[in-house]
Amino acid sequence: MILSTLQKERAAYQPKCSPLLEAIDSLAFDPIGDAAIDPKIEALFPKTERRPIEKLTRGAKHSFEPLRVGVVFSGGQAPGGHNVIWGLFDALKKLNTHSELLGFLDGPSGICENKTMPITEEALADFRNQGGFDLIGSGRTKIETPEQFAASARTARDLDLDGIVVIGGDDSNTNAALLAEHFAKEGLKTRVVGVPKTIDGDLKTADIEASFGFHTACSVYCELIGNIAKDVLSAKKYTHFIKLMGRSASHIALECALHTQPNMTLISEEIAEKNKSLRQIVEEITDLVESRASQGKNYGIVLIPEGIIEFIPEMKTLISELNTLLAGHGGPEAISRLTSESKSCFSSLPTSIQQQLLLDRDPHGNVKVAQIESEKLIIEMVTEELKKRGSKAKFSPLAHYFGYEGRAALPTNFDADYCYNLGMLSAALIAYNKSGSICAIKNLSQPASTWEPYSVPITSLLHLEMRKGKEKAVIEKALVKLQGPLFKRFSEHRAKFARGDCYLIPGPIQLFGPPEITDQRPYILEG
Amino acid sequence: MILSTLQKERAAYQPKCSPLLEAIDSLAFDPIGDAAIDPKIEALFPKTERRPIEKLTRGAKHSFEPLRVGVVFSGGQAPGGHNVIWGLFDALKKLNTHSELLGFLDGPSGICENKTMPITEEALADFRNQGGFDLIGSGRTKIETPEQFAASARTARDLDLDGIVVIGGDDSNTNAALLAEHFAKEGLKTRVVGVPKTIDGDLKTADIEASFGFHTACSVYCELIGNIAKDVLSAKKYTHFIKLMGRSASHIALECALHTQPNMTLISEEIAEKNKSLRQIVEEITDLVESRASQGKNYGIVLIPEGIIEFIPEMKTLISELNTLLAGHGGPEAISRLTSESKSCFSSLPTSIQQQLLLDRDPHGNVKVAQIESEKLIIEMVTEELKKRGSKAKFSPLAHYFGYEGRAALPTNFDADYCYNLGMLSAALIAYNKSGSICAIKNLSQPASTWEPYSVPITSLLHLEMRKGKEKAVIEKALVKLQGPLFKRFSEHRAKFARGDCYLIPGPIQLFGPPEITDQRPYILEG
Repeated sequence: MILSTLQKERAAYQPKCSPLLEAIDSLAFDPIGDAAIDPKIEALFPKTERRPIEKLTRGAKHSFEPLRVGVVFSGGQAPGGHNVIWGLFDALKKLNTHSELLGFLDGPSGICENKTMPITEEALADFRNQGGFDLIGSGRTKIETPEQFAASARTARDLDLDGIVVIGGDDSNTNAALLAEHFAKEGLKTRVVGVPKTIDGDLKTADIEASFGFHTACSVYCELIGNIAKDVLSAKKYTHFIKLMGRSASHIALECALHTQPNMTLISEEIAEKNKSLRQIVEEITDLVESRASQGKNYGIVLIPEGIIEFIPEMKTLISELNTLLAGHGGPEAISRLTSESKSCFSSLPTSIQQQLLLDRDPHGNVKVAQIESEKLIIEMVTEELKKRGSKAKFSPLAHYFGYEGRAALPTNFDADYCYNLGMLSAALIAYNKSGSICAIKNLSQPASTWEPYSVPITSLLHLEMRKGKEKAVIEKALVKLQGPLFKRFSEHRAKFARGDCYLIPGPIQLFGPPEITDQRPYILEG
Repeated sequence: MILSTLQKERAAYQPKCSPLLEAIDSLAFDPIGDAAIDPKIEALFPKTERRPIEKLTRGAKHSFEPLRVGVVFSGGQAPGGHNVIWGLFDALKKLNTHSELLGFLDGPSGICENKTMPITEEALADFRNQGGFDLIGSGRTKIETPEQFAASARTARDLDLDGIVVIGGDDSNTNAALLAEHFAKEGLKTRVVGVPKTIDGDLKTADIEASFGFHTACSVYCELIGNIAKDVLSAKKYTHFIKLMGRSASHIALECALHTQPNMTLISEEIAEKNKSLRQIVEEITDLVESRASQGKNYGIVLIPEGIIEFIPEMKTLISELNTLLAGHGGPEAISRLTSESKSCFSSLPTSIQQQLLLDRDPHGNVKVAQIESEKLIIEMVTEELKKRGSKAKFSPLAHYFGYEGRAALPTNFDADYCYNLGMLSAALIAYNKSGSICAIKNLSQPASTWEPYSVPITSLLHLEMRKGKEKAVIEKALVKLQGPLFKRFSEHRAKFARGDCYLIPGPIQLFGPPEITDQRPYILEG
């Protein structure tokens, strides 16, 4: 691999550390109340040791036997992942210089198939503080069948592993808890711990202030939105519709809205809460276009969260009906069997979107919601609505979708630091036998020297949800809280953003320079 | 306007200067041979003083009366524009503290309509080293009718202007020459000089090593391509087709190809030179997909220059026929009147592209080539070709278009410096009576202290071209030279880029830090 000049400079960055985690051989764990666990959930994890949430503190010095640990990336990329591995590696070596770290290749399938590579100083050299997951790869395999669990146990035994660190999102951490339970049942020594990763920001609890990667991804999107805003102010002739990655929740859209102050930002959670129809949304955007045009402003910026379609009530119903019907029938017949509400919703959509709804299905037969071009759907419908109103507003829309540009970006200093500390913490949770826990670090808005590491039992995050007709224990996706401080701040200011040109231009991520610009934090930490 | 933290830090940056230009009151102009001017061109500019290309050197100190100068942005945004105005402002004040600078609002129409704002220290405060053209706006009005020339002369007289600085691309600088000639004919004292601006990089001559803004725009695109490359290496499942802005020439695509080393980069000039059909291009990409798949690589990156469609011979013919036919007839009838070659070309295209060709026309009745989604056209055709071949290659294509994200970005240190120096040089060309000249600075790959400013008569750049059936004097767009050092380097390495994963990850533009990363230069300077 050839590193660019910036990557080389960047590889020399030394993450800032929690002093507590640096003293990894001298830790104690203070119980913080009782982790409230649903008895039904508890029943699903009979062999997992019941533990409260624990805060790490300074304790007596221990000595440790060499540890053998495996680490795996699960799911989509998030900036900083390599630093988790680096922090884990350094911490294991600090516990005992003979400790060994293995990387499972290409995601959880690497566990089932026992495909690994040794993580060494040399292997890490080109990946310190870098984006992507390419050191060991990632994958979306879910360990869920009895065969997969048995294969995983076999791997853990064959490799004589003391622990496995699962770096993943909500589903992957649920999986980590199930794996921990299975290993306990099998009498294996292998502890399984989780690390909260996802750019979507929806793995968030009272103890997990943010998942890693969110800050960097949002910073890349904000750079681009800001650049477009400068263009908008200069050209004064386009209305940009910018769709932002994020499977379900609107955290990314909200974070970007606060950093860049575009004229409108759709928040899926609000749409669902207020039961807004697609028509209403289109009318509101059309009102915005017209009211700005009446001020002579034939330009603007609208942010759209990728997950929006599933939050619009009638679209959600339509999609769920189509998923069922398309399993049995071809396109045209499925349409004839829709309920009359869904039929009229379907027929109100532009042809291109109708085609996407009928054709693009995932391997499970579901409509691929993420691939529905909601930004173009909205543009088409606003154009039509303006025509219907006989509006004189000049409307030149442009569509963008930002996603892949941010998932594997060079991590910000915050994500680089946070991830290195998460890696050290994951080593601690394995060393101190906290199987079934997820790494949590609090006080993230403050300097790393004051960060507070916690061990949080994953079972305390689980609740029961119906999935494919079965009750399953899952981590609930954290959606944007409409009563939370961030949405409140946004909703207090949005009328001003709509009327005015209040755009903020954050610029590109700076890795060097004065701390005001290199040590920024995401708003999501505030609530 | 509220500046972001980074913008505020950035506003404090002091551009590096040519010592020669700093001594603006002590300049001499050394003739460098004779500017070879076509006699036919010369005949079109009878009143413009004949001057050779001149190199600026140190001369005796002069004293200057206060100068009144107007400045205008013409055409699309390019990063650094505000620094041209800043450099111009500072230089005028250095010549005489009572000099005054006016900004024409919203492009050349501001000259015709005499719409200005005073440029002062206060007005400049929030725009130093910032992107965009929003201090005074820009526009695409061309001054071409006798009425417009008369109105411009009236403005110059009414405002008692000693000079006008036109910041623009090839057409705008042609316009500057015409305006200079007209003012000379009218006996006005107003000198008109040009500044080479365009992210496309196609305003490039022996003396103009690069237009400003090219470096920053390419750096933004390279950041994004690099981020996607890291994602590609990690996810290993998508083939990204990335279209890059640039109206005609492929300089941006070539520059980005050298910085990021994707698997394939289409170069329009090569396609035209080799007379490649769309089918051939599609087959070559399909070959790439299949050969990578045979190595187990179901992923990749292909760069596509925006202007490609007009360089593919049969598409160029089809578009030109459609432009003529659609002026007179509706879509279906126009198709029936195509030549048989164009008819078969048209019918080979996907429906969505057929629609774009028939519907999207500009005010002059031309197909809007830039809005044709060539990246999706190619994806559709490659998908079909793979099916036709019965290929087993897994092909998951994703389309991107990068353009507006880079046009108004925060300028790199190079563009910030270059533009400030161009602004100073434009003041010098007005002060020393070089009407009809364009600012050129050579030796740009070296430190600013060694930059070499030149005065280049715009007429020396003009040649006659048929436009809308009339012979017109225009600056020829500089296309990528297939014999030049950059294309050569690219073509020597591209087989390796295609097979391997040689991606480079340049990362975001750094404005602070070690000079290796803050003082980078574009490859285009090399030839």
